[in-house]
Amino acid sequence: MKLLRVGPAGAERPALLDEDGTLRDLSGIVPDIDPDLLSDGAALARVREAADAGWLPQVAAVSASEGPRIGPPLGRIGKIVCIGLNFHDHARETGAPVPEEPIVFMKAPDTVVGPDDTVLIPRGSEKTDWEVELAVVIGRTARYLDSGAEALAHVAGYAVANDVSERAFQIERGGQWDKGKNCETFNPLGPWLVTADEVPDPQALQLRLWVNGVLRQDGSTADQIFSVAEVVRYLSHFMTLYPGDVISTGTPAGVAMGMPEPKPYLRDGDVVELEIAGLGRQRQVLKSATAA
Amino acid sequence: MKLLRVGPAGAERPALLDEDGTLRDLSGIVPDIDPDLLSDGAALARVREAADAGWLPQVAAVSASEGPRIGPPLGRIGKIVCIGLNFHDHARETGAPVPEEPIVFMKAPDTVVGPDDTVLIPRGSEKTDWEVELAVVIGRTARYLDSGAEALAHVAGYAVANDVSERAFQIERGGQWDKGKNCETFNPLGPWLVTADEVPDPQALQLRLWVNGVLRQDGSTADQIFSVAEVVRYLSHFMTLYPGDVISTGTPAGVAMGMPEPKPYLRDGDVVELEIAGLGRQRQVLKSATAA
Repeated sequence: MKLLRVGPAGAERPALLDEDGTLRDLSGIVPDIDPDLLSDGAALARVREAADAGWLPQVAAVSASEGPRIGPPLGRIGKIVCIGLNFHDHARETGAPVPEEPIVFMKAPDTVVGPDDTVLIPRGSEKTDWEVELAVVIGRTARYLDSGAEALAHVAGYAVANDVSERAFQIERGGQWDKGKNCETFNPLGPWLVTADEVPDPQALQLRLWVNGVLRQDGSTADQIFSVAEVVRYLSHFMTLYPGDVISTGTPAGVAMGMPEPKPYLRDGDVVELEIAGLGRQRQVLKSATAA
Repeated sequence: MKLLRVGPAGAERPALLDEDGTLRDLSGIVPDIDPDLLSDGAALARVREAADAGWLPQVAAVSASEGPRIGPPLGRIGKIVCIGLNFHDHARETGAPVPEEPIVFMKAPDTVVGPDDTVLIPRGSEKTDWEVELAVVIGRTARYLDSGAEALAHVAGYAVANDVSERAFQIERGGQWDKGKNCETFNPLGPWLVTADEVPDPQALQLRLWVNGVLRQDGSTADQIFSVAEVVRYLSHFMTLYPGDVISTGTPAGVAMGMPEPKPYLRDGDVVELEIAGLGRQRQVLKSATAA
């Protein structure tokens, strides 16, 4: 299933994109797409049954020409754990050695916005960068998992994420990467949460990202140093993963930081588009926070 | 006011410690000690009025000899931002240079437990360490603050935190500190959230921590490299701070990592006690997660 949330920011309603591409309203069946739903097999089965039976009303369009705003596909996210330098080609472009273990950093859930929402360039930023990533959404509490197969059984689904990053804040301002990863709006997520049954092989997904129409990233999760299964297994030995937690599994080559000078960092008015095969597409317009 | 939450984990009720040291039930006045309360001046005024007027019922004791469990003093925490190496004496003991800017890392809110709850030593851990810290709780949304005075006006209150840390996970396992900071139960918080009006000078607080009765940390926030006001102001330029966010402002000297070999890292059965003058006292028994 493709689960999503539509409506104004902070007041989204649960919805489903059916196989004909029609948005269906789920608010009569479940209160939200949230950790409670992801960990409730009976509720998920009710959603699936209603979708298959064609019982779900269509989501009303805002206007004839325009659908409703799409929000992040998941509410009440607990934590967002990110894996750094997890693609061979990206590690190469940054000049970093291939990590021996996953590199872990964090983004706060309050950085999450919808897939087509405005992304703010922080005041004082000169190095705001893009990163298309496969986001993994946890469906069952995970502690000390033994195997990759066990790890995948704890995954509820997948989504597209843009791990927006300010490179000077991240690297040049002393200390840990989190400082450049947590600016407001720095985590567009969605459009959909695609349930794991529709993603038979998370290591065979093409990720692409364009800036102002120019293709900048074009990779595949086949190039990941640590697979989704290994990342989930590994993390469960350092922290407990709960339903509704999100893991961003790293970005392929093609970020601004990896390019020759002058590096094309994002500027007010730039348009970033990104997609992962089968998981949908995002489009963000950049806007300076000074003018926000 | 000293606000707190009492009752079983996940089902705490709001309470107040009055000037006589009696626990008063707030659940008839506010639903919880949470971001909504902290950002609602009228609700806080109602609590204060009821406390002053002596209207509040006493919290029922579990037994004659024992009060109720005390939970973390704040529900629905949004994010926890931590400042590393923020005391001159602690930077010295770790051999690190004094940072030129605050070092920022993060803990997930799901690591938070009550002040006297069990702390789990992760499987495979040999370097679980303690850190008494002053936690700052945000009361108003903060973006791009100009001054320290403005920053302090965004603080709702203060609490004691133990920033439990696994040093091998943090430093020896590749990458960012977050990997050693987010194990389950690694953030005892409380007992109270003391409102900012009762802490006239956050830079004059004594912090102490004992392990098995031996005093290990004894410092003062006067020794902080970056003051509470400066930390809040600084962070607001890298992320938006929201009501209910928590900032842990660093630990003084005396952690196990800073001691000569063999360093006395925590073991199953160890007892950690910590307090900050005016903010209350915590007591945790360590327990191996293998046996949990």
